[in-house]
Amino acid sequence: MKFGKWYVPMIIGIIVGMVTGNIFIPGISNQGSQSTMTSTQISAAQNKAFVPPGEHDEYYMFSSGGHSGQVFVIGVPSLRRIRTIPVFSPDSATGYGYDERTKELMGGFTWGDVHHPSLSETNGEYDGRFLFVNDNANNRAAMVNLKTFHTEQILGPIPNIMGPHSAVFVTPNTEYFMMGTRFSAPMDGSYQTLDKYSEAYDGALQAISVDQETGHMTPAWQLKLPPWNYDLSDAGKGPSDGWAFLTTYNSEEATHLLEVNASKNETDYITAINWKAAEKAIEEGKFEELNGQKVIDPAKVPGIVYLVAAAKSPHGVDVSPDGKYFIGNGKLSPNITAYDFEKFIQAIEAEDFTEEVRGIPVVNYDSVVAAEVEVGLGPLHTQFGPDGDAYTTLFVESAVAKWKLGEWTVLDKETVHYSPGHGTAAEGDTVSPDGKYFVALNKLAKDRHLPVGPSHPENMQLIDISGEQMELINEAPIDPEPHYAQIVKADKLSPVKIYEKDESNPLAVWSEEDVRVERDGNNVTVYGVALRSRFYPDEIQVNEGDNVTIHLTNIDLDQDITHGFGINLYDINFEVQPGQTNTIKFTADKPGVFPYYCTNFCSALHQEMQGYLLVKPKQ
Amino acid sequence: MKFGKWYVPMIIGIIVGMVTGNIFIPGISNQGSQSTMTSTQISAAQNKAFVPPGEHDEYYMFSSGGHSGQVFVIGVPSLRRIRTIPVFSPDSATGYGYDERTKELMGGFTWGDVHHPSLSETNGEYDGRFLFVNDNANNRAAMVNLKTFHTEQILGPIPNIMGPHSAVFVTPNTEYFMMGTRFSAPMDGSYQTLDKYSEAYDGALQAISVDQETGHMTPAWQLKLPPWNYDLSDAGKGPSDGWAFLTTYNSEEATHLLEVNASKNETDYITAINWKAAEKAIEEGKFEELNGQKVIDPAKVPGIVYLVAAAKSPHGVDVSPDGKYFIGNGKLSPNITAYDFEKFIQAIEAEDFTEEVRGIPVVNYDSVVAAEVEVGLGPLHTQFGPDGDAYTTLFVESAVAKWKLGEWTVLDKETVHYSPGHGTAAEGDTVSPDGKYFVALNKLAKDRHLPVGPSHPENMQLIDISGEQMELINEAPIDPEPHYAQIVKADKLSPVKIYEKDESNPLAVWSEEDVRVERDGNNVTVYGVALRSRFYPDEIQVNEGDNVTIHLTNIDLDQDITHGFGINLYDINFEVQPGQTNTIKFTADKPGVFPYYCTNFCSALHQEMQGYLLVKPKQ
Repeated sequence: MKFGKWYVPMIIGIIVGMVTGNIFIPGISNQGSQSTMTSTQISAAQNKAFVPPGEHDEYYMFSSGGHSGQVFVIGVPSLRRIRTIPVFSPDSATGYGYDERTKELMGGFTWGDVHHPSLSETNGEYDGRFLFVNDNANNRAAMVNLKTFHTEQILGPIPNIMGPHSAVFVTPNTEYFMMGTRFSAPMDGSYQTLDKYSEAYDGALQAISVDQETGHMTPAWQLKLPPWNYDLSDAGKGPSDGWAFLTTYNSEEATHLLEVNASKNETDYITAINWKAAEKAIEEGKFEELNGQKVIDPAKVPGIVYLVAAAKSPHGVDVSPDGKYFIGNGKLSPNITAYDFEKFIQAIEAEDFTEEVRGIPVVNYDSVVAAEVEVGLGPLHTQFGPDGDAYTTLFVESAVAKWKLGEWTVLDKETVHYSPGHGTAAEGDTVSPDGKYFVALNKLAKDRHLPVGPSHPENMQLIDISGEQMELINEAPIDPEPHYAQIVKADKLSPVKIYEKDESNPLAVWSEEDVRVERDGNNVTVYGVALRSRFYPDEIQVNEGDNVTIHLTNIDLDQDITHGFGINLYDINFEVQPGQTNTIKFTADKPGVFPYYCTNFCSALHQEMQGYLLVKPKQ
Repeated sequence: MKFGKWYVPMIIGIIVGMVTGNIFIPGISNQGSQSTMTSTQISAAQNKAFVPPGEHDEYYMFSSGGHSGQVFVIGVPSLRRIRTIPVFSPDSATGYGYDERTKELMGGFTWGDVHHPSLSETNGEYDGRFLFVNDNANNRAAMVNLKTFHTEQILGPIPNIMGPHSAVFVTPNTEYFMMGTRFSAPMDGSYQTLDKYSEAYDGALQAISVDQETGHMTPAWQLKLPPWNYDLSDAGKGPSDGWAFLTTYNSEEATHLLEVNASKNETDYITAINWKAAEKAIEEGKFEELNGQKVIDPAKVPGIVYLVAAAKSPHGVDVSPDGKYFIGNGKLSPNITAYDFEKFIQAIEAEDFTEEVRGIPVVNYDSVVAAEVEVGLGPLHTQFGPDGDAYTTLFVESAVAKWKLGEWTVLDKETVHYSPGHGTAAEGDTVSPDGKYFVALNKLAKDRHLPVGPSHPENMQLIDISGEQMELINEAPIDPEPHYAQIVKADKLSPVKIYEKDESNPLAVWSEEDVRVERDGNNVTVYGVALRSRFYPDEIQVNEGDNVTIHLTNIDLDQDITHGFGINLYDINFEVQPGQTNTIKFTADKPGVFPYYCTNFCSALHQEMQGYLLVKPKQ
């Protein structure tokens, strides 16, 4: 094992530097905010990255919104944010979390922590059907339909898992995605003090199966794992299809001061999961039920989980486009490790194990390592181009290293600003990456944009990777906080422009004549219509205390004509997109006169699109 | 009055077109999304609009976020969104609405409808101190401190006003801003049916005074106004300082089908307010108290409010930089009307009134009109450059018209995409506009960006106005929904980079030694610290049912090092910026083990920045 022999002093330096903030890192010293690009470079950059008015971006980038709970849709190469898709947090601009459908979706939570978005795949290629994301905070996953760009399902909180950071990465035909837990906790949900951590706390992996027609997610099965932290995952492909790989840190099982205590061991692990073997174990009944979930204990069912040493506290694990290698990114090591999948299988077959940890075999590192590549300080995540090109973000060094699979040498390095977490390349998680673009998702912006107070934006930087040398060609600030993103060729998506007129929906009203208000006791139901530039009805009379339901259909079946519906002082706003019917419910608990109005500018007479809710006081 | 004689058939055509969506409007027919710019134009555009990596934008644009409830901070000329400032809606990314301070600010509401942002002014120039915005939905106003880019105050709901759309526009030394009501409602808050509209419903104007040191807003006085809709306002400047102007539509007093019934009269009004006379009336006690507010009835106190005819259903009213003219934008008329302020005063002094409406004198239009300029279809809003240049957005025509004060002729027209509401020019509301840039805030994007489902983004377009001809040089999509924006020279702002260490704050903890957990009965208070890359404490033990308060101080006094604090499954996330102390409170109502972790990426060991909340179950 090569990486053990010299990295210790460097690690200490990094830790000290990170804690004190005083480490000198090339690229971080630029506080002057003047471009250091030459005029030739600027000219090249604008030719490549500026999308003239009227032209479209070439690629969509789907970025996690982190603790905003949302997904950001960004055009590449312009880096313009085209749309924010609300997923886990309410969004009054679109009424997400206000109307009944989306309120129910959110399940009583008001936020989520989206880490890793994953586009659905067919034969290892992005297919433009669905986008899946995780919620690290509340143990959930969500599915966005890319026909409408709407969140259609939120699954969870899923029992027995805690902080599924190690998600979402789909398998090559979107059979599954795996959700490994960042945090360990008692899997049965019981209360246990931290002195019982090693006995009573568990890591876990949740496999989610996906319906190929609808994208609907279902919990399939779970693995009980050692009480370590699982950081990132990736699915095998090609020869390694059927496997999933997770990075693993805190194999020290520390419970306090993790920044020191979880970095003590020389190595942590990559955890490799044979998910086809897990499927088989489920079929054979080799599981226990826990809180309604099917849980496999790999210590009791061999052949599913294997470990292999990785440089300490790895962050990303990434499978090469050809599926022949999986790459561990050391985080606290200056190198990445490439593992040869074929040798890995051979070692398993030969039982070439160095030890068993908690009943799980540890594959002999020296037998399966293809190479350690010294990419630089703080490697977090690797993405791929064609022809074996690989790009690794270097958090501590504030740079991106380009290196080559098979040759195992660093070919180029580009400074970024500052401290990149993930990076993402055009079609970079597929079996056939496009090359061309790489976006560094930098955690710090510092001086790169106009200052906006103590909290700076994150900073995305676009690198042209079409040539031998990487070239920085664009950058843009972004709200907190992209962790990972995927970039898909624009023509793979074909979103609809209006909702189909659904004559079968009993809540929809398709003509003014059918607009009605029904009363049943103190329940008032409005079947209404929004149409440029009026609401039917434009007066709603109720009594104080009535339970009011409003079903509203937008019968403007015309591109880009969304209507909003806000009620003054009733804290209600929602929208209906062309052809859509949405519902709100509220109690008319405030007597008086309350205007309602179209909140989404729709026509020259938008300002006239208003009505009155009259709430008659109790006598 | 010139505009009465020929616009009727055109209006009918516009209305029909807006309702059916079938009107042919030049510029809307481009569905092909290919740039129609020549390569020379593209080259010029990218030279002007592309901000190379490492360079800063020249201007900040502060844009309303509409029903998102927020403010968008955008760089000009790049049109990159640098920051979203949460104001009226929660934002889990920054913990806004989750921590105690911001939860209290929001006052139980979960959204607002921000229409018009206004930068504070000194001698009619933006001074970079404060930003004020309105909430049309809940009768509020908010103040953002531009040192921190944080919302510091939300005022309201203010009694007696309903839908203050006609705001915020500050007076030249930020003495006040006025909030005129878009909706009429019984001013006393009583329940009245719509058949009593003309007798029992009222419009209103609220004057808000501003503390010059802190930006703190206080309701000053109110005017009772006729039950019409007031759309936009502007403050006088120079010779017209001391006055405010509001556009007025629905002088028909229609209550139903406003898109037809509020457009019947040939003319509506500009409502002109002598706010210095109102101040004097308040001093002299000429007001009545209503729900705690001082209300002046202008029918009883002459000399404060005057009307002057305006082309029907005007949208914007804009005072020229020299203060000599106020411009009414017809909306349903193809022209703007420029009123000569000096003549307006002369007419008032000469009592040159054509009639009195509801006790308010109507100034003789023909005596005060300087010009009607036929700018094109659907003029909504006018902004200014130097040398008398004026720029009017044409919603129906999808264009911007350039014309000249004094000459009253249209000099140029630029097609935009599509349907601009407001436009905003560099320093365009000041006494000395910069020229150079104009941004059209288009309501529709249609085909201009990669499709994102039935709901399209809005579209901002940047026009170079430095030459004789306008030139479109950039465009960017934006989330719903900018209504108005102001553009300020970047060097006028000097935000802080960290919060000052406040040793006097009893809730703050500045060293690890002072970290503590205090228990008083079932109240548990944590005085904690966030510091790269750990929380003190990293274990919190409580009992089920305890009331938990956590005060957390970020003692990383270093630029761009924000820490987040999320608790799994407890639906809690908030942030502490460098030097800041924030507080959350919750009831520990779920027993078990709940990790907490830093949600805002802060260092290479961010992933290790975690702890455990252990909630011991009730026996």
